[in-house]
Amino acid sequence: MNPKKQHTKSLHEIAGISLPEIINSKSANQVQKWRKKQTSSKELIDGILTGDIAVLSRAITLIESTNVSHLAQANEVITACLLHANKSVRIGVTGVPGVGKSTFIEAFGKHLTACGKKVAVLAVDPSSTISHGSILGDKTRMEELVKDANAYIRPSASGETLGGVARKTRETIILCEAAGFDTIIIETVGVGQSETAVHSMVDFFLLLKIAGAGDELQGIKRGIMEMADAIVINKADGDNIKKANLAKVAFNRALHLFPAKKSDWTPTTATCSSITGEGIPEVWQTIEKFLELTNENNSFVEKRAEQNNYWLLETINDQLRSHFYNHPEIENLLASTQKAVQKNEISPFAAAQKLLKKYFKD
Amino acid sequence: MNPKKQHTKSLHEIAGISLPEIINSKSANQVQKWRKKQTSSKELIDGILTGDIAVLSRAITLIESTNVSHLAQANEVITACLLHANKSVRIGVTGVPGVGKSTFIEAFGKHLTACGKKVAVLAVDPSSTISHGSILGDKTRMEELVKDANAYIRPSASGETLGGVARKTRETIILCEAAGFDTIIIETVGVGQSETAVHSMVDFFLLLKIAGAGDELQGIKRGIMEMADAIVINKADGDNIKKANLAKVAFNRALHLFPAKKSDWTPTTATCSSITGEGIPEVWQTIEKFLELTNENNSFVEKRAEQNNYWLLETINDQLRSHFYNHPEIENLLASTQKAVQKNEISPFAAAQKLLKKYFKD
Repeated sequence: MNPKKQHTKSLHEIAGISLPEIINSKSANQVQKWRKKQTSSKELIDGILTGDIAVLSRAITLIESTNVSHLAQANEVITACLLHANKSVRIGVTGVPGVGKSTFIEAFGKHLTACGKKVAVLAVDPSSTISHGSILGDKTRMEELVKDANAYIRPSASGETLGGVARKTRETIILCEAAGFDTIIIETVGVGQSETAVHSMVDFFLLLKIAGAGDELQGIKRGIMEMADAIVINKADGDNIKKANLAKVAFNRALHLFPAKKSDWTPTTATCSSITGEGIPEVWQTIEKFLELTNENNSFVEKRAEQNNYWLLETINDQLRSHFYNHPEIENLLASTQKAVQKNEISPFAAAQKLLKKYFKD
Repeated sequence: MNPKKQHTKSLHEIAGISLPEIINSKSANQVQKWRKKQTSSKELIDGILTGDIAVLSRAITLIESTNVSHLAQANEVITACLLHANKSVRIGVTGVPGVGKSTFIEAFGKHLTACGKKVAVLAVDPSSTISHGSILGDKTRMEELVKDANAYIRPSASGETLGGVARKTRETIILCEAAGFDTIIIETVGVGQSETAVHSMVDFFLLLKIAGAGDELQGIKRGIMEMADAIVINKADGDNIKKANLAKVAFNRALHLFPAKKSDWTPTTATCSSITGEGIPEVWQTIEKFLELTNENNSFVEKRAEQNNYWLLETINDQLRSHFYNHPEIENLLASTQKAVQKNEISPFAAAQKLLKKYFKD
């Protein structure tokens, strides 16, 4: 929200009442000027393209804003960045809580920056509105990576719906890529459909597991395992190594039950330790092999085009629904209609037609 | 389409040209009168309520009609029938091809009519448009049941979308119930999301399996097993009995991995033979136990109310989408917008907003 505009408006509304002393109008003006200056699209775009992290963060905040008046500018910045984006690999990392996602990303990210990569770590966590950012919110969990000049860590956007959070993250990817980050890691925790959302915005989907956690079937059941390009068994250190190796074999067997992927990539299994660093370089080697294959057979580009199309249609559907349900007459009628349908006074289809008739009449 | 209206219209268009001799105007008039007479809503409703199968079939044909002018009358008939419906149990039967669905339904249906039940067998098969009714289309596959005065078999409605087929089937259930059928069996084959559609219109969902078919994990993977209220291993006869019993134990173990159902019902496993009839009465006993439990704890009624609500919202979403995509300007713009999005000239979200702006302007 533009604070100056807001300010003027409230003055108009309470004309004649002087401002309380608590607001120092001089410094408030300065803040407003600075904020206004900061939000120029050109400056944002130029800053992003030169890799200015402060400007990047500011632009992401603009994308995350729920203020409708910010939308046009956000789109302007994104469209300009699109031309410079897409030169990256996007890696999704998922796994149930306790599997060690943060420590893995810390170890993996450090390995990548040591290889000369620029790494951005984002998150999709629709629960963060309630939990105030359960993942990545506490940046101290990635103590080393957060200090790394070639890494950029951004907590999950908050929002009431997964759709909103996903949209914001997906646009943040574009901005990070335009700012020169060539490796984007998107972390998610298994809340609702968040894995599906992340899967549809990444090139490579990595499922993190630990040995003997008993959630093997959960992954199958919820369709997560089917999405994985690699299953990595974390915490393969000390007494755990043997168990981790057994789990690796078991997962490998399970993976063979799934149909082949469009990309012709055969999902792999591996073990690693985020503490000893064992197996971490191999994870990156696997991704490099994946990139080689999918660039050769063109499935990398095809998948990105498909994903773009998916998000186009998803956004349309989301908006159509929200426009309908926020329509004043529908808001008035919906509850009573639902009650009538539940009582079998009207069939669901006839009831839908009634509501739709009202909606389309306006 | 009203044939008389059509007739008059074409006469107007080609005024002065006499009708070709091939049309016997006298008998054509008779047919038209008969057809017109048949389509009176009152007659349809009265006929259904007295259990007249010919009228029931006619009314279902009306529901299945893609002619928009039939919609109002169809809704009138359905609304009238709703008051007399809902006094039944709706059983979904699914299983991969080769599992013996038709022979099972034949044996199970015969057992039910022998118990004094009136059985309607419907199907949801979105592929039937292409295959001209692959399931239930060939009624001879249920030779005995089709001759049974207390059974009514109706092939799958055809339609291009699963949504359309599902809607028609769900409304057909209402009509069958109003016509006095107290046990509705809805067959589906695993095409796309058809199991989910059937699951959301039945009280009891029965998954048919055979021993050693190797599709155990397919069921888990696609979420079918999670929906099952009972898994019945068919073809448990001859040399197969031992294998079927082993499969039963394995499925029972797998079922325990899923979270408890809202209804508090614990899914069961059983074996049966549609040829010897062994185990068929027990399937019905299981359903009776299910009905006892869910009537006692009220989950039966709650689930039906939830399903009604689900279909209300699904229909709205379907219609909103189809209205959008059939909008002439959107039809014109969609392909080029999708191309631009795929080429990264515009972000999916900005593109969606552009299209939505056009759409809502009108």
